[in-house]
Formats: sequence, C-alpha cells, structure tokens
Amino acid sequence: MSKLTDVPKRILIGRALRSDRLGETLLPKRIALPVFASDPLSSVAYAPGEVLLVLSIAGVSAYHFSPWIAVAVVVLMFTVVASYRQNVHAYPSGGGDYEVATTNLGPRAGLTVASALLVDYVLTVAVSISSGVENLGSAIPFVVEHKVFSAIAVIGLLTVMNLRGVRESGKLFAIPTYVFVAGVFIMIAWGAYQSLVLGDTMKAPTADFEIKPEHQGLAGFALVFLLLRAFSSGCAALTGVEAISNGVPAFRKPKSKNAATTLALMGGLAVTMFCGIIGLAMASGVKMAETPAHDLLRDGVPVGSDYVQNPVISQVAAAVFGQGTFFFILLAAATALVLFLAANTAYNGFPLLGSILAQDRYLPRQLHTRGDRLAFSNGIVLLAGAAMLLVGIYEADSTKLIQLYIVGVFVSFTLSQTGMVRHWNRHLRTEKDPAVRRRMVRSRAINAFGATFTGLVLIVVLATKFTHGAWVALLGMVIFYGVMSAIRKHYDRVAAEISAPDEPGDETARPSRVHSIVLVSKVHRPTLRAVGYAKLMRSDKLEALSVNVDPAETKALRDEWERRSINVPLKILDSPYREITRPVIEYVKSIRRENPRDAVSVIIPEYVVGHWYEHLLHNQSALRLKGRLLFTPGVMVTSVPYQLQSSEAAKRRAKKRSEWNAPGAVRRGPVDPRHGKEPAQQGGPGNGTGTGTGTGKA
Amino acid sequence: MSKLTDVPKRILIGRALRSDRLGETLLPKRIALPVFASDPLSSVAYAPGEVLLVLSIAGVSAYHFSPWIAVAVVVLMFTVVASYRQNVHAYPSGGGDYEVATTNLGPRAGLTVASALLVDYVLTVAVSISSGVENLGSAIPFVVEHKVFSAIAVIGLLTVMNLRGVRESGKLFAIPTYVFVAGVFIMIAWGAYQSLVLGDTMKAPTADFEIKPEHQGLAGFALVFLLLRAFSSGCAALTGVEAISNGVPAFRKPKSKNAATTLALMGGLAVTMFCGIIGLAMASGVKMAETPAHDLLRDGVPVGSDYVQNPVISQVAAAVFGQGTFFFILLAAATALVLFLAANTAYNGFPLLGSILAQDRYLPRQLHTRGDRLAFSNGIVLLAGAAMLLVGIYEADSTKLIQLYIVGVFVSFTLSQTGMVRHWNRHLRTEKDPAVRRRMVRSRAINAFGATFTGLVLIVVLATKFTHGAWVALLGMVIFYGVMSAIRKHYDRVAAEISAPDEPGDETARPSRVHSIVLVSKVHRPTLRAVGYAKLMRSDKLEALSVNVDPAETKALRDEWERRSINVPLKILDSPYREITRPVIEYVKSIRRENPRDAVSVIIPEYVVGHWYEHLLHNQSALRLKGRLLFTPGVMVTSVPYQLQSSEAAKRRAKKRSEWNAPGAVRRGPVDPRHGKEPAQQGGPGNGTGTGTGTGKA
Repeated sequence: MSKLTDVPKRILIGRALRSDRLGETLLPKRIALPVFASDPLSSVAYAPGEVLLVLSIAGVSAYHFSPWIAVAVVVLMFTVVASYRQNVHAYPSGGGDYEVATTNLGPRAGLTVASALLVDYVLTVAVSISSGVENLGSAIPFVVEHKVFSAIAVIGLLTVMNLRGVRESGKLFAIPTYVFVAGVFIMIAWGAYQSLVLGDTMKAPTADFEIKPEHQGLAGFALVFLLLRAFSSGCAALTGVEAISNGVPAFRKPKSKNAATTLALMGGLAVTMFCGIIGLAMASGVKMAETPAHDLLRDGVPVGSDYVQNPVISQVAAAVFGQGTFFFILLAAATALVLFLAANTAYNGFPLLGSILAQDRYLPRQLHTRGDRLAFSNGIVLLAGAAMLLVGIYEADSTKLIQLYIVGVFVSFTLSQTGMVRHWNRHLRTEKDPAVRRRMVRSRAINAFGATFTGLVLIVVLATKFTHGAWVALLGMVIFYGVMSAIRKHYDRVAAEISAPDEPGDETARPSRVHSIVLVSKVHRPTLRAVGYAKLMRSDKLEALSVNVDPAETKALRDEWERRSINVPLKILDSPYREITRPVIEYVKSIRRENPRDAVSVIIPEYVVGHWYEHLLHNQSALRLKGRLLFTPGVMVTSVPYQLQSSEAAKRRAKKRSEWNAPGAVRRGPVDPRHGKEPAQQGGPGNGTGTGTGTGKA
Repeated sequence: MSKLTDVPKRILIGRALRSDRLGETLLPKRIALPVFASDPLSSVAYAPGEVLLVLSIAGVSAYHFSPWIAVAVVVLMFTVVASYRQNVHAYPSGGGDYEVATTNLGPRAGLTVASALLVDYVLTVAVSISSGVENLGSAIPFVVEHKVFSAIAVIGLLTVMNLRGVRESGKLFAIPTYVFVAGVFIMIAWGAYQSLVLGDTMKAPTADFEIKPEHQGLAGFALVFLLLRAFSSGCAALTGVEAISNGVPAFRKPKSKNAATTLALMGGLAVTMFCGIIGLAMASGVKMAETPAHDLLRDGVPVGSDYVQNPVISQVAAAVFGQGTFFFILLAAATALVLFLAANTAYNGFPLLGSILAQDRYLPRQLHTRGDRLAFSNGIVLLAGAAMLLVGIYEADSTKLIQLYIVGVFVSFTLSQTGMVRHWNRHLRTEKDPAVRRRMVRSRAINAFGATFTGLVLIVVLATKFTHGAWVALLGMVIFYGVMSAIRKHYDRVAAEISAPDEPGDETARPSRVHSIVLVSKVHRPTLRAVGYAKLMRSDKLEALSVNVDPAETKALRDEWERRSINVPLKILDSPYREITRPVIEYVKSIRRENPRDAVSVIIPEYVVGHWYEHLLHNQSALRLKGRLLFTPGVMVTSVPYQLQSSEAAKRRAKKRSEWNAPGAVRRGPVDPRHGKEPAQQGGPGNGTGTGTGTGKA
C-alpha cells in the first residue's frame, strides 16, 4: 500500500488513516484544547477591537468604560462555560445544543438551534478569514491591500483542502494555537513588566491620534444603549464555546470529565487574553474608530480613506515588541493562522452537524453515512459559497461581518440552557437520592442562570444589532429552517406512501411469472455472458431482443445467432427511425398488457470502463433505456457487467477514494462503542485476503 | 395531446412533428433550394466586399481587376456545381463528400474530409453571424457598435433554439431567402436601369473617399499574388455548395435529378448576384479598405478608428435605393436573416455529419441514433462554443474570419472530386454499354477538371492565406482528425477485446449457480416488491441482506422481518463506521471466493421519483453501491423500481422529450426506405393505446 510518491504527502499531512483505525485517534486534553478551542481563543484577535470601536462613537473618553465591558464579558464567559459543563455531563453523545434542545424542548426548538448553528458556521468562516487577513495584513501590507481577493483565496484554499480530504490532525492545530496563546501571554506579561515595573510608556502606533466623536457627550439612555452595543460586540469572544459539547465522543475517557476540564481551561485562557489585550490597549493608547477615514485625526486632520486600521492585537504587539520585530511578525502570523484554523473548524463542524440532522431526516440521508465523499463535498461547497458571498458583499470587513455573527450563537446558547433546565426538572421528578438531587438542583441553578443571562444578551444583541446586519443572519436561519422542514416533510410523505401494508398477504397484484428479455446488439463476450446469466435465472420465458436500426447489422446478428446455435429465441424489433428506447419500452408494455401478472426482467449487457471519456463512448443508449425502464411498472432491470481491461484504472481510483478522510472525522470520534470489532463476514478463518484491505484489492 | 398553452408555440414554429411522421416531410425543389442554399447564397453578402478589400491594398486603381476576379469565381462556381451534379447522381445516399472520399480514396481521405467539414461548420457559424451583424448594423447602428456582444447573443439564441429542438421548417427558410434573392435582383435591375437607361450617377456613401494604397504601383509577381489573394477571398462565395450533396435523401423523387436541378439553380442565382453586386459596386464607386481607419481618406484625412465600414451590399443598396429607405432597410434585414439562417445550417449539418461519422465509429455511437437529444446537445454546444471562441478572438470581424474559412471547403472539394474520378475509373473498368460509358467518360472529365481546378484553388488559398489565419483552420482539422482517429482506435480495441471466442463451447468459467441477495434497509413496499420479484426468479440460493449502521433500526428490521414471516433468510452485516458499500462488496466477494462458480445477483429496491431534488434525497447509497458492484466480477445488479406518485411528473417530461425534433432532421430525410411501415410490435389489433402515442402514456 505504500508508494514512494506518497512520502511527501505523508510528511506534510500525516499518514492517511483508514476509517476502521479511527478508534485509535481519541484525543487527549492537550490536543483536544487546540482542536476545539481555536475558534473561541482566536476571537480575542477581533473582539477587543470591536469593543473600542463602538465606544469610540462617544469619543475617546468613553474608552474608560472598556474595563467594565470586559468584566461583563468575563462574567458571561464564566456563566456560559459553567452551563456547558453541565451539558457535557448530561449529554455525552455529541449531539450538542441540537440534541439538548430537541430532547427537552421539542423538534422545533431543535431545528431552530440547528439553523442557528448552520448560519454560525458560515459566519465563522467569513469572520475568521476576514480577521485573519487583517492580522496578516499588519505584517504583509499586500494582503490587506487586496483584502477581498486574499480572503476569497484563503477560503478557496481551505475548501480545496477539505474537498481533497486533508485529515484534521491534532498537531496541525496544536502548534499554531499554542504559539498564539504563548505569544499573547508573553506579550501581556512583557507589557505589564514594562509599564508597571520599568515604568516605560508604551506607545501604540495610533497613540497620538485623536478621535472625532460622532456623538459628543452622550448620556442617559443613549449612553446605556452604546455600552450595550459595545458589550454585544465583545460577546464575539464567546463564539465557538459550544464546539466542545459537540465533540465529547472524541475525548479520551473519562470523556465528559475531560471535556468539562478542557472547557474550563479554554474559558480561563480566553478571558485572560481578552482582558490582557484590553488592558494593554488602554495602557498603550490604541485608538480605534468605526469609520477611521473621517473620525480618526492625525495632527487634527482626518487620516483619509487610504488609512488601514490595524487590529488591536497587532497595535498592542507593535507597542510591546515594536513594529516589524521578530516577535511582532511571529504573533501576527500565529494570529492569522489560528484564525484560519478557526475557519477550518466550521468546515469540520458543518458536515458533522449535517450528519446528525440527516439521521433525523432533516437533510438528505446520505449525509448520515460517514465518509460519503459526495455528500460532504456538497456541504463544503455550500459552506464555502455562502462564506465567499458574505465576504464579497461585506468587503471582507470583519467589523461589518461581526454584526451578523453573534445572533445565532446566542439563540443556541439560550435554547440549549433552557432545555437543560427542563432536563433537570424532569430528572428531579424521579430522582430520590438526596446527594444526586443536590447536584441536580445546583446544575439546574447554573443552567437557569445561564439561560436567563444568555437570553438577555440575545435580546441586547438583537436590539443593538438588528439594523446593523443581524437581520441577515436571521434571514439565513429562516431559510435553513424552511428547507430542512421541507425535506423532513418529503421523507415523511414518502415513508407513508411506501409503508408496508399491515396484513402480510395483502399484495394482490403480486406477479406470478417472469418474462426475461436479454437486450442484444451484437454477439460478443458481454452478450454471451448476459445470455448465460439469464439462463441461470430460470425465468418462465426467456428471449433475446434486438432493435433493428441497421438492416445489415441485424442480418449479421441473426446469422451469428443461428451459427452459434444459442438456444434462446431472438426477437427483432423494427425501428425505422433508429430509436432504441421507444421500441423496447413499447414491447415491454405490450407484454405487460397481454399478461398483467407477468413481471418483465430486462437484462442489459454493459461494458465497464475505467475513464470518464470511455463512458461517453459506451453504454449511453443502455443507460438511457435503463432510466426509462425504471418508470415502467412491473419491470426489473438487470445489468450484467463485463469488465474491460481499462476498468482496472477505475478500481484503483475507487480504492484511493475509499481511503479518503471525511472532514470532521477527528472531532466526531468513533461512532460505535464496539469499534475495533471486525464485522463477522470479514476476517473469518480461511479468508486469505485478510480484513480491512479495502474493496479495490481482491 | 393538444394543450392551450401550445397554441402560441405552434403559431410561431409550426406544429411539432413526431419523428415517425418524418416521411411526410420530403422537400420539393422550391423549398429545398432555400433550405440547402441559404449558406452559398448568403455568401454574396460578404464575398464581393472581400475581393475589393484585398485589391485596395494596391490602391483604388486595382479595382478594375475586380470583374476579372468575378469571372474566375463564376468559372469556378460552374465547375464545382457541374462536379457536384455528378456526385448527387452517383451517391444519392446523403453521405456527401465524406462518403465519396472514403469509398474511393480510403478511410484516411474520408476522415480528412470529415475534419475539414467539421471545421467549416464552425466557421460557417462564426462568419455568417459576424457578417449578419455587420449587415444588420448598417441599418441599426447599435448592433455594430456592440458587435462582439451582438454576434455572441445571436449565436446564443440559435444555440438555445436548436437545443430546444426548433424544427427546421421549410417556410422559415423560404420566406427570408426568397425575399433576399428577390431584393438583390430588384436592386441589380433597378441599378442597371438607373445607370444604363436613365444615365444617373449612383453614388455609394464612400464614393468620394480615397484609398491610401499600402503598396503603390504593385506589379509583377507581387501583383499576381495580390490578385490570387483577392480571388481566394472571392471563393468564399462557394462555401456551402456541397450541402445539397449531403441532403439528397431529403428531396422528393426523383431525388438525384431534383437535387442536381436545385444545385444548378443555386449556382446560377449565386453567380448572378455575385457579379451584379460587384458591378453595382464599381458603378457606384464603393471604396473598401483593409484597415479603413488608416487607409480610407475622407477629404484627404484618414477616417479614424470610429469609422464603421459597411458591407458592399449595404453600400450598394444605399446607392440604388437611398440610405434609410424602406427597401434599404428591408434588404439589410433580409440579408442579416439569411446569414443567420446560413449559420443555422451548420447547427443542422454538424449533427448530421456527426451521425454518419458515428456510424463509422469515429464519434460516440449514440450520435448515430436519430433524436438522441443528449448526443445532439453535446454537438451543438461544442459547435456554438467553438464559434463563440472564434468570434471573441477575431472580434466578430468577418474579414478576419474569412481568412480561416475557405481552406476546409476546398480540401473537401478537391478530395471529393478526386474520389469521383476514381469512382468513374472503377466503373469504366466493368461497364460495357457504350452509351453509359460515354456518359461516364464525360462525368469523369468534369470531375477531373473540378479536382484539378479546386486543387489549384486550394494551393492558392493555402499560399495566400496561411499566415493570415488559414493555419488556425488547419490546426482545427488536425485536432478533429486526431480525436476521431483515437475514438475509432478505442472502439476497435474494445471490439477485439469483447469479440466472442470462435468455439461456441469455449467459455470455461461459465457460472453454474446463482446466489441472489436482496438488499434491505426497512420493510416497506419497495422492499416487499423486490423480495417478491427475487422469489419469482428461483435462484439457487436467496437471502436478504442488510447493513447494520444503526443498531436500533437493525433490531426493528429484524423484528418486522420475523413478524411478517417473510420466508427469506435475513443476513445482517456489521458496519461499525456506518459504511454501506464496503461491507456489501466484501460480502459479495467472499461468496465468490467460497464458490467461484456461483454468480451473485444483487437485487436493489429503488424508489423512482419525479424531480431532480428528490433524486438528491433518495437512492444515493444504492446508486453508489451499484456503481461499485459493476466492477466486481461475477455479479449482476438488478434494480427493482418502485414508482412513487411524484414519478408521474418525470414521465410527463419524458413524453415531452420524446416529441423533440433533432436538428438536421429535415435535411437528413427518412432513414429507411421502408419508412411509414409501423414496427410490428406497435399498432397491432386490440392495442388500445394506438401507435405513436409516445412512451410516456400508457
């Protein structure tokens, strides 16, 4: 199985794991943290800036509210983390918010959560990539000068990688995430040391700028509204927290406990980084404006539309390490990389959620099957297309995109926590053990507080952001909800239509005899094989059928048929207009008309070829005919394949495909508790090929 | 069959003819002339201008050579028409130049002719549309100001019309063609009357312009070369002459005689119009320059790049009728329309030639079947794409495109006439009757002269136009030749691989028993039907097979199977990773390993649905599995369809499709001498549905 050409690929992305080895890839905490937390951790790259940006509307004096907003975000983060620690204990199956809402609040709530999450995945890609491009741009100006192009190129790259099935590898996530976290912590520590111990004044690149407030001296309700809006923007730091609750099955045992610990770790890291960056921004005098071209003044003059407003994290890094220094570049690169990984998270989460929804028949059934490449591809292309559209419309501006972002997250937070309250209520009704009851009551209190708090935040977010773009996210949710409901309805309708009648003997029109027809155009090996197989089937009547499109060929066929004394009668249908499909269909129908209780078995010899262009050259009329026959009642259509030599090429390709790794495989964990046990039909004694060698081998 | 909504369509494009009524549509001469001759007749719209344009290189004084060039073109036209009159008598089957060359000069010559004709069809579209846009632009300036856009839009329109299967109707061709011919003749007569009888001086819009010669005082070899180049351009008038020889079967009887008469008529009309327009152009002082922006002077100053050089025919019409008069507009419109019809000719000829090539296995077999919509569609899209590409590259400039045009035509003329000489030689060897021999000798003389003359013209065209663009056409021919040879080679290789062994009893590995497997996921009607059919087939062993992707569902299936006491054993395959394909394939292989002489029959229940989006929701795993099973030796795959209610929609669509008319149907004529005879299986007594009602009805 090992080929020389595979070596570079293996070095780059690790050895391709066969899916039956998936059981070995359970994640330890130190790997699970970067895999699941790159999304929430990376959001400290944009969330602090968004807070300052909104506050700047009331002028730079409003910046002194930022620590209070940071405190509010920290409290919220702790609330959400505490709530989700209850979730992972109660629902370790990986269904996440969708499962919790469906189980406790009913399918409509579940579908709402699912719609919200799907929208959120799209926005995770759009926001993370845009922010990543902005961060990379602080080190490489070219990138930010061609922002939309760069963002779309990165999305394109991630899409191709995921379509080709690059396996999520723990290491791939771990290195940039830990470099990023370490970098931010070093920056905070070094900054604190410089200003508190050495007493140096750090100066951000924008320290000497002034802000022209849009609304001078904002007070009362207007100020409160502005503070709430700044808080809403800060809540972007919470996106992705729920990812761990979807990934419990991927953890090593004890799964729930490890997941809960990882969740707490992630929360702790995120809030420290968030607060540290806000603190450094205040200390170094970072100035951010909502519309920098007009409102940011350098020496009293607006900076103009050429000015590129770098992210807070990069301005702070410039203040602490110095613009363009090694550490500055390293942190910018790590930040961008973590943001791209956060986007990649959505590429994995989208099909994962899709497969759960497919199980409940809200999405096409084939999404349910792990490793169905085609199905995953459709999902990935949909995700990438929607994200590219948003990036194009909003010009890859992370500030604009964040307006859309947080609604979905808080819809699912609120519904999930509400569901958890119901969950505990239900269990408390039956639970007798006082110790367990005490734990449940405490959990319920945490979840109730979480539901209330996140519900309030949701209202705040809707109120402050609806006109700024949140309506787009809501519209997206409505569309997903509508499509998924329609699919479910369709499946239900079909299920009703095909459900077996209750009395086993009810089928009155069951056919009594089989009339078999082998379609023949020439006497060659595929035909002889088809005739041979047809004879084996011992149907009540067997005949060979040919359509006369060319009298000379037909005569040759008839002669050859005689000469070989093939003891199956050959019937010739005339077709003055060289059609094949129509005469055959008419003939089949005439059989059914004459003997309504006969089933007609149409046997078609088929060449199997290995290349798509060969496909164009063969079997086209057979395919067309098969398609039409399927619409004819009382017919079964049998293909007798004849494998041409070139079909080996297709076999090799199929084998390669079977080694493809579906996105989301790592974070999904193995499906079945009985993993490792081989199916009974494989690996039996005397089975020379051995098990798990792939379908393309024997 | 008649629906209210069809009425407007019927008024517009005539009643859709079912293909079994095709026999009734044989063409009388008065209709055949416009159908087949719109291409050569329309070329008088651009050929005269091309002659003047080339001559202008030596200055306006060289214009006095134009009558001599016209004479040369007339002689050539008579030669070619006389030659092809021999062709239609000798080869009335409609194979045209391809058949003549293949039969008499061998398959390579035939394939060369075919490649040349295919390239020519592409160029017919590109040149005719570009010239049509230029002519229309003389009346509607907007069109010529957006020339490339207009040309591509017209190609797009023709493509859509032909993809949708608008039937070539004789009337559609007749009216504009006769209006055009009549218009040109009236113009010539009226112009001659004005200048010869009334003695008026007609003045073309460019009569007062001067031409700055690129090469002053050209003489000797250079002048001869220029005259030859002008003659080559004039030869554009001969394109499309061979169309009639491809269309003999579409004529009323006596086919060959009628075709020959039509050919003579067409030649007479074409040369009269060609000479008349050249004469009027000389009389009215038309000035054409190769690069008008620099070389055309108004009051001694170059006209500049804004100047639009109108076609000769429109300048002459302006001189005779007056710019913007009713007749002027009418002629411009008729000219444009005839040119568009000439382009449409290629849409019909391309698939027609394709079907003949497919019969000889140079193109995919399915092209051979009349009315195979998919195959025709591919051909039409290929034709339109190539023409659009050329129009785009050459900016819809008919003068530039004509440089590519004439090579292919003269390749096929020369080879065809050479082939005819061989044809007569062969017949003369056996023919005894002196009267017949005399006719044959005369025909041979005509064809020999034709072959020599057209061969010389081919050399002239190649010599004078190679660097101007003829190399592109040659490259196109080489590509077509290469692809078609490769296809033929592939078919030959496959035919050798599958050819039946000579001894009838040679097949050693013929299977002796059948092991049938019904794939089952749930107990519903499709499953029960499949099991019922499978039982009818009385195979040696029958079992139902299910893959356990969800233990709960599997248990439900097992219970239901027991409860209904379906007396077929149910086997469950484990699949810890929720795969379906792999376990089934492995199981089938294991059966074959244990009993190599067993054939395995896999029976798959399938839903048949009516809409593409329903397809996405059903059968995907079954389809994937079928695809993989076909690569497994010793397997036959049976689909047992279950028609859902929605499948009725697909049936209706299929019926509509079956009424589609393939492009080229009218000019191809009926296939079979026995047309009109119904196939034996249709229309028998007691057949309530009646014949020819389409497959989607009963």
